[in-house]
Amino acid sequence: MKLHDIGEFGLIERISSGTVNNPEGLVAGIGDDAAVLKTPGDKNLLVTCDMLVEGVHFLPKRITPYQLGRKALAVNLSDIAAMGGIPRHALVSIALPIGLALEYVDELYRGLKDIAQKTGVNVVGGDTVRAPILIIDVALLGEADPTTVVFRGGARPGDLIMVTGNLGASAAGLNLLLRDDEASLATAGEANKIVIKAHLEPVPRLAESRVIAGIRSATAMIDISDGLASEVNHICRISCTGARIWADRLPILEATLRVAESIGKSPTSLALYGGEDYELLFTIHPNLAGDLKATVEKATGTPVTVVGEIMPPEFGICLVTDGRLEELQAKGYNHFGGA
Amino acid sequence: MKLHDIGEFGLIERISSGTVNNPEGLVAGIGDDAAVLKTPGDKNLLVTCDMLVEGVHFLPKRITPYQLGRKALAVNLSDIAAMGGIPRHALVSIALPIGLALEYVDELYRGLKDIAQKTGVNVVGGDTVRAPILIIDVALLGEADPTTVVFRGGARPGDLIMVTGNLGASAAGLNLLLRDDEASLATAGEANKIVIKAHLEPVPRLAESRVIAGIRSATAMIDISDGLASEVNHICRISCTGARIWADRLPILEATLRVAESIGKSPTSLALYGGEDYELLFTIHPNLAGDLKATVEKATGTPVTVVGEIMPPEFGICLVTDGRLEELQAKGYNHFGGA
Repeated sequence: MKLHDIGEFGLIERISSGTVNNPEGLVAGIGDDAAVLKTPGDKNLLVTCDMLVEGVHFLPKRITPYQLGRKALAVNLSDIAAMGGIPRHALVSIALPIGLALEYVDELYRGLKDIAQKTGVNVVGGDTVRAPILIIDVALLGEADPTTVVFRGGARPGDLIMVTGNLGASAAGLNLLLRDDEASLATAGEANKIVIKAHLEPVPRLAESRVIAGIRSATAMIDISDGLASEVNHICRISCTGARIWADRLPILEATLRVAESIGKSPTSLALYGGEDYELLFTIHPNLAGDLKATVEKATGTPVTVVGEIMPPEFGICLVTDGRLEELQAKGYNHFGGA
Repeated sequence: MKLHDIGEFGLIERISSGTVNNPEGLVAGIGDDAAVLKTPGDKNLLVTCDMLVEGVHFLPKRITPYQLGRKALAVNLSDIAAMGGIPRHALVSIALPIGLALEYVDELYRGLKDIAQKTGVNVVGGDTVRAPILIIDVALLGEADPTTVVFRGGARPGDLIMVTGNLGASAAGLNLLLRDDEASLATAGEANKIVIKAHLEPVPRLAESRVIAGIRSATAMIDISDGLASEVNHICRISCTGARIWADRLPILEATLRVAESIGKSPTSLALYGGEDYELLFTIHPNLAGDLKATVEKATGTPVTVVGEIMPPEFGICLVTDGRLEELQAKGYNHFGGA
């Protein structure tokens, strides 16, 4: 049997057994955006890591080294945000082709250090090794008050499903980056520029996360890295619920709509299955949703939108389009294809 | 300018500036075996990571997947040991070729989980991604009492330099693995088997570390990953001292001597420059060295040997062979060659 027979999530399930040898220090291990560890003090420690591989996660000709370094940390910051935590310390492992220009490496670290500085994160260590391709793996430590950590597994039927910001722009941008040559990209129009920037320069929702976690009313939270459909499926599986998502409520930028039309893709598909939005998806009791939306929007300027509702498990996970129901499949990005 | 113009250690120096944005939570960042972080409680948190790249750190035909998974964690355990810490939680990022057999991945995780279980470490998360080559990056968290953490920078002139176990066996084993075909390796004699095992199945010196750190008399400690000469240079640079190493005192196994002869290499060179011994090198006041040696040997069964002496900085870092002095260069493994 090969990896592509079981797929990425089959593999994760397979390797997750027998990983806890010292349960005393552990609040939650594999299976959420970050692991949650006990410390001797009054805070929980959060840890997460994300590996970016040349040719798989990025094409060096389509992203500047500054953007790449920045993004390598940003996607981890998003995982800490998804737990309601505050990022603190990063380890940066980097594999570099030996002939790489030093200026490239300098720019990569400048991007990474800039966002580290803006978010108060220390780079405390790492590893630098030689490899035939460029790979960056960032491990990020954060902290959270044990009473405000938000897990994936707390959604309850009746909760509303909300997202920060907008969906699908990053996927639209990726489509352009893969389609167009450098000359076209350099002269791209305003809408194209907006969605390309969304893909290359994702903004982790740390401020929004602090407001959401601080109010303590969200029942579950996750960041949207593999597409809304995939994340809703994660929340429902772990919370043992169903869900319905209303297609006409998905927050999609005007620029994304225009680019979707120009590339012949459905904007709804980009929003549901595209991934790399790095927005927060969270669930909350309907009586509390209005207040939370107003508070987040006032504090951060980021719009918050109700996109669906948590349902009993027997309802399944569905997309509602003009009153029609269809199953909402978790067909976001899967590293090994397959199941 | 290219990476190989400045070398691995030049690169690390270059990227280390501007990495501290929140000094309050930090005891020691880049530059030791692990970073040391403050926690709200009474313990320090240790964090380290090591990336193993196919074709650079290992050849899949020369190491079983079980050994590879085990080694990926073992080399990190060695870094926590070098600080006098106790390993607690690991994150495992792994990049896998899509056509890899599932049995290979299972065996790799079996090796990693076996040593995790033996050392009480939880695997709490990670990332699984596709890549053209196999890469494993483990980030390991440990804890230590702030009064027993041992840094690289505390060596003082007059201190003796001691090492656990023996040196050069791993390098001898690597030489055989690179020279011999599979048929010869399968029928290797006893000495060859011993040194090959030393390379493929390094034993992190956790028990020895706990004894050494617990006694609180070691002034500096480091693990020997890049070769004794390189590590002595690290200790001296950070401690602002010189050192002399006595060539005739290096602890070298009989098996290593025999293999060295058969491959036409100097056993002293293997011991000084070979690397991947994963022994502990530490420094200690001469009045306390005898007691510590006896205590470690009694508690763990691992021999401890005096191999040299810390000297004033103006002495330089020298190797003493039959009374002759020569400069001891840090010519261990360097990922980008060059300076």
